[in-house]
Amino acid sequence: MGYIPDALAASLRSGKTKTVSVIIPDISDPLFAIMVRDIETRLKERDFDLFIQNTDEDDELERRAVMAAIGKKIDGIIICPCQKSAANIAIMSGNGIPFVLMCRRFPRGSHDYVVADDVRGGYLATRHLIQRGHRDILFLGAPAYISSARERLQGYRQALKEAGIANRGALVREVPIKGGECTRALQALVKDRVRFSSIFCFSDLMAWEAISFLQSKGLSVPGDIAIVGFDDIQSRLFYPYPLTSVGYGKKTIADLSVDTLLRIIEAPARRLRVQRVVEVKLIERRST
Amino acid sequence: MGYIPDALAASLRSGKTKTVSVIIPDISDPLFAIMVRDIETRLKERDFDLFIQNTDEDDELERRAVMAAIGKKIDGIIICPCQKSAANIAIMSGNGIPFVLMCRRFPRGSHDYVVADDVRGGYLATRHLIQRGHRDILFLGAPAYISSARERLQGYRQALKEAGIANRGALVREVPIKGGECTRALQALVKDRVRFSSIFCFSDLMAWEAISFLQSKGLSVPGDIAIVGFDDIQSRLFYPYPLTSVGYGKKTIADLSVDTLLRIIEAPARRLRVQRVVEVKLIERRST
Repeated sequence: MGYIPDALAASLRSGKTKTVSVIIPDISDPLFAIMVRDIETRLKERDFDLFIQNTDEDDELERRAVMAAIGKKIDGIIICPCQKSAANIAIMSGNGIPFVLMCRRFPRGSHDYVVADDVRGGYLATRHLIQRGHRDILFLGAPAYISSARERLQGYRQALKEAGIANRGALVREVPIKGGECTRALQALVKDRVRFSSIFCFSDLMAWEAISFLQSKGLSVPGDIAIVGFDDIQSRLFYPYPLTSVGYGKKTIADLSVDTLLRIIEAPARRLRVQRVVEVKLIERRST
Repeated sequence: MGYIPDALAASLRSGKTKTVSVIIPDISDPLFAIMVRDIETRLKERDFDLFIQNTDEDDELERRAVMAAIGKKIDGIIICPCQKSAANIAIMSGNGIPFVLMCRRFPRGSHDYVVADDVRGGYLATRHLIQRGHRDILFLGAPAYISSARERLQGYRQALKEAGIANRGALVREVPIKGGECTRALQALVKDRVRFSSIFCFSDLMAWEAISFLQSKGLSVPGDIAIVGFDDIQSRLFYPYPLTSVGYGKKTIADLSVDTLLRIIEAPARRLRVQRVVEVKLIERRST
């Protein structure tokens, strides 16, 4: 059967477990499934294994995941933080475990992070809808404590301002990141008779849910309502629904996150911060 | 920051790492992303963590994943085997590491497994197309060494036979499980002028790719070609494309796999095999 080295004993000798913990909101979200796949591929090249922990955007589950990683003496953490507070980030810092923030960052504090250019993404999505003739553009965002939601909203406002379109508060909605919430938000908007001709959604996942809802009401996309998503999942999976979306190098973010983390693990004394903002682009399909 | 127990030292004392390795073809496949999510939820209830290893349906990558799990003294393995051979299963058996096969099983050998009723699923999908008036039904399957592919084909043949439709070899295609392969298979069929009015696809993922291909050729679904998938991903994610599919309790399979594995870990001496076949049903949507 061949010689299998005893990794547990080896890790006690070296103080390294050759293991990284990936803490994400939800692996069943196709975006995170793709990113974890890319992370695993990169880690394997360097002979590291990975743990998966889901937080469901919950502070307490995140805290437990961080504690488990520290307790298991895992070498480092790649985390897409839920951001309800920075307390779990403080636990990681306090325990001296190497970590990299992925996809989300904190306005304060000096951390290593790799994110997409969310402001630019929000701007491009909104400008595209404006160019298509829309003025009543709904932003179905995520809670504002999440940096990517806040920054995409910033880009949305920037594009409206540039076009001289007044920013209507009723057209900005914070939707919890959870299946079914997007439908609830749209039902409330319909009930309140809020008028809009297009939607910029925080994610493709939300956009799909919005489209499903609109279709169930007999509305057509883009005929009645145009839709732009974010993440461009379609660049990696064959989905028959042609969704216009903001794309970015998902593999680039995964690779940079891994490379940054392994550099910290290998040379913990270095003080250079890695703070990377990966460029975005609009991919036009037939939903707009 | 609170007391963090030293799990590494504890695992040396107990001989248990409270860790399970999940070895699957590809976490970026939505089916596996959903199943891993359910596995993690169930494991967390029992205070276990999980490793993820992707095999890309490759024997050698699977061997390395198995060896890594054994080397790290992980308590057990849940594996969706690539099945090109049973050699890696023999390695697990030989090393005495507890394991459960998930979604696929071997015709020979006595292993614990949890699978869907693939024969019945293949039968239901094909019977549905026959009831819709189709007689030229293409089966876009997966390689026959994969048990679920073989069993779905068996169900397809059973339904044809029952309806008195001759089984045409040209209408059964084995497609490698890899993005782009389904497109290649369909291009070859078009080139060879093989006639068919409907397709039963091995997975939703393949069905989406088939639909994308047909749309790119200006064909409509189900107007020109009707399509049935397998896995019913749509039961868990909001996808706007209304795909008819064969569904089954994905959470049931995940939970049973975890429960079975933990029972073996806790009582390795027991000799009762768990071999569960989870029931399937057809979910009709608008692609047929």
